[in-house]
Amino acid sequence: MTEMPARAKAISELVDRMLNGDRVALARLITLVENRSGPSPVIMSRIYPRCGRAYIIGITGPPGAGKSTLTDRLVARARSEERTAAVIAVDPSSPFSGGAVLGDRIRMQSHFLDPGVFIRSVSSRGSHGGIARSTRDLVRLFDAFGFDLVIIETVGVGQTELDVMELADTTVVVLVPEGGDAIQVMKAGLLEIADIFAVNKADRPGAGRMQTDLEAMLQLRGNEPWVIPVLLTEGTRDGGTDALWQTIGAHREYREAQEARSQGGAERREGELLDILDEELRRRVRWKLAHPPGDGLAAIIEAVRSGTVDPYSAALEILGDEGRMAALVEAPDASR
Amino acid sequence: MTEMPARAKAISELVDRMLNGDRVALARLITLVENRSGPSPVIMSRIYPRCGRAYIIGITGPPGAGKSTLTDRLVARARSEERTAAVIAVDPSSPFSGGAVLGDRIRMQSHFLDPGVFIRSVSSRGSHGGIARSTRDLVRLFDAFGFDLVIIETVGVGQTELDVMELADTTVVVLVPEGGDAIQVMKAGLLEIADIFAVNKADRPGAGRMQTDLEAMLQLRGNEPWVIPVLLTEGTRDGGTDALWQTIGAHREYREAQEARSQGGAERREGELLDILDEELRRRVRWKLAHPPGDGLAAIIEAVRSGTVDPYSAALEILGDEGRMAALVEAPDASR
Repeated sequence: MTEMPARAKAISELVDRMLNGDRVALARLITLVENRSGPSPVIMSRIYPRCGRAYIIGITGPPGAGKSTLTDRLVARARSEERTAAVIAVDPSSPFSGGAVLGDRIRMQSHFLDPGVFIRSVSSRGSHGGIARSTRDLVRLFDAFGFDLVIIETVGVGQTELDVMELADTTVVVLVPEGGDAIQVMKAGLLEIADIFAVNKADRPGAGRMQTDLEAMLQLRGNEPWVIPVLLTEGTRDGGTDALWQTIGAHREYREAQEARSQGGAERREGELLDILDEELRRRVRWKLAHPPGDGLAAIIEAVRSGTVDPYSAALEILGDEGRMAALVEAPDASR
Repeated sequence: MTEMPARAKAISELVDRMLNGDRVALARLITLVENRSGPSPVIMSRIYPRCGRAYIIGITGPPGAGKSTLTDRLVARARSEERTAAVIAVDPSSPFSGGAVLGDRIRMQSHFLDPGVFIRSVSSRGSHGGIARSTRDLVRLFDAFGFDLVIIETVGVGQTELDVMELADTTVVVLVPEGGDAIQVMKAGLLEIADIFAVNKADRPGAGRMQTDLEAMLQLRGNEPWVIPVLLTEGTRDGGTDALWQTIGAHREYREAQEARSQGGAERREGELLDILDEELRRRVRWKLAHPPGDGLAAIIEAVRSGTVDPYSAALEILGDEGRMAALVEAPDASR
C-alpha cells in the first residue's frame, strides 16, 4: 500500500472509528460533512457501502403545527421497541433565534442521556440547494453508524423542505385545524409528498372538519395503491401517536413490497453524481474568485466588485474562454 | 458590425422590442429566463443597465395566511395611484395541484384586463437554488420593462422562500392568529427577514394577543433604526390594507435614506457572479453526463447508473483528472 497523505489517513481512521461505534468520531464526521469541506466526498465514498439499513421518516408542516412534539413521541415509541433513532432538525440558521431553537430542543432532553438517540440540527441558511445535500449525507452517516431510524424534521414548509422530504421513505405532513383549508394544502405542494397526514392539536375546533375535507380531496385522486390516511393526533397529550406509529409501520411494509417488485434508481444515482460534481465545482470557483490566478481573471472580478461591469457580462466573458474556464475549475491545490 | 449568429440576433431583437414596451416580447423573454436556457445570461446582460427603478415588495408567510388576497389588495392600491405592478407568485410546481393554484389566481382576474398589471407564477420545483435565481432574473425583466412595483409572493414559508425574500426591498410577513405563537415565528426565521408584520384574518380570536406578543418579542431586539410594525389586517374585507400600504411607503422612505448613506454591494455582485458561473457549469456538466465524450467518462457514468460504482467514488475519479474536468466544463457546442 502506498503512503497516504496525512489528512486522508486521519479521515480514514475517523471513518473506521465511527463504523466501529465511536460517537465522538461520528460527531466529528458530522461537522466535516456539514461544513461541506473538501474531504466530504471522500468520507461519503467510504461509508456508502455501509448504508441502506436505516428507515427514514420525514416530518414536515407549517411552523407551529407541533412537529417537534410529535417527533419526540415517535422517538419514544422507537425506544420502547429497543430501536435506536437519530433526529435531524432542519432549522433556518439564525443568530438571533438560535437560542430559542435550542430552547425548544430542551423538550428532547428526555432522550438526552439515552445513547440510542442522537439529535442534530442542520442550519445552512442560504446555501443554494446545500441543505438537501447536507441532510442526505447526514442521513447516510447515521445509517452507516447503525441507527435503525432516522427522523428528518423541518421547521418551515417550503420548496427546500419539499426537496428534503424526497430523502424520506415515509413522509408525515403535520397540520393544525386552523392552518388553512384543504386547498391551501394542495397549493403548498404538500399533497404530493404526503404518505400520511396528521391533523395535530386535534382537541381544537375544526379538526374533524379538516380531516373530512382532506379525505374528500384525497378521494379525487382515484384508485391509488396506497390510500393516504388522515390521522388525528394530540402531540402534547400523546394522543393518537400509537396509531401514527403503526401507520408508519404499515407504510413501510407497503413500500418494501413495492421496492421488491421494482428495479431502477439509475436516474437518481446519476442525478446524485451531478449534484456532487456541481457542489465541488462551485467550491472551486468560489475559491478561485477569492484567489484569482494571474490571467486577467482578477481584473474582471474587480470590475464586478466595483460595479463597472455587471455580473452577467463578466460571466459571459469568463465562460467564453476555454483556458480561463479550465483554470477556474482546477483543484485549488494544483494551482499553487 | 460583424454578423451575429441568427439566435443571438433574434434574442437581441426580442430584448429591443421588450424595452420598447412590447408585452409579447416580455412574455417570451420570461419563458426563456424561466427555462434557464442557454441565452439567459445574454438576455440579462442586455437588460441589466435598464434595471434599478422598480420597488420590490416581498409577501411571505405560512400556507393559508391569506397572502394572495393581501397581494391583490396591494395591487389595487398601486393602481389607484396610477402605478403599474407585476406579481411573481412562487408556487411549488405540481401536476396535481396546478389547477387549484390557477383557480386561486382567478381572484386576481379583477386585474386581468388591466395592462398595468402582470401576473406570473414561478414553479421550478427541485431546481436546487434555481428558484431564487429565476425569481431574481424575472424581477429584473419586469424592472427593465418599466413596472413601478414588483410584488413577490410565496406560497410556503421555508428556506427557499427566505432566500427569495432577500430580493425584496420591503418584506411583509403575513401571519394568522392561530398559526402558532411568537416563538414559532422566531424558529421559522421570519423575524430576521420581516420589515413589517401583518396579522391577517384579524377578526379571529387571538389576533390582538399575537400582535402584543410579537411587539414584546421585537422589543427584545433593543434600539433598531427601523422599528418593525405589527399591523392587523383583514384581506377579505380590505381591512387594514390602507395602513399596510402606507407602512410599506414609510419603509421605502427609510430604506432609501439608508441607501443614500451607504455604498457597497461588492460582495453581493461577486456572489451573483459565482451564482451565474455555477448555474452555467451545472448546465454544461448535466449536458456532458447525458452526452459523454469518448474518454472513459461514458464508462464511469454507466457504472454509476448500474450501481456498480457509487456516485461519490465516481465524482472523486472525475474530479481527480484535470483533462476530464476541462472536457466536462467545455461549452457543449465546442465539443461537437
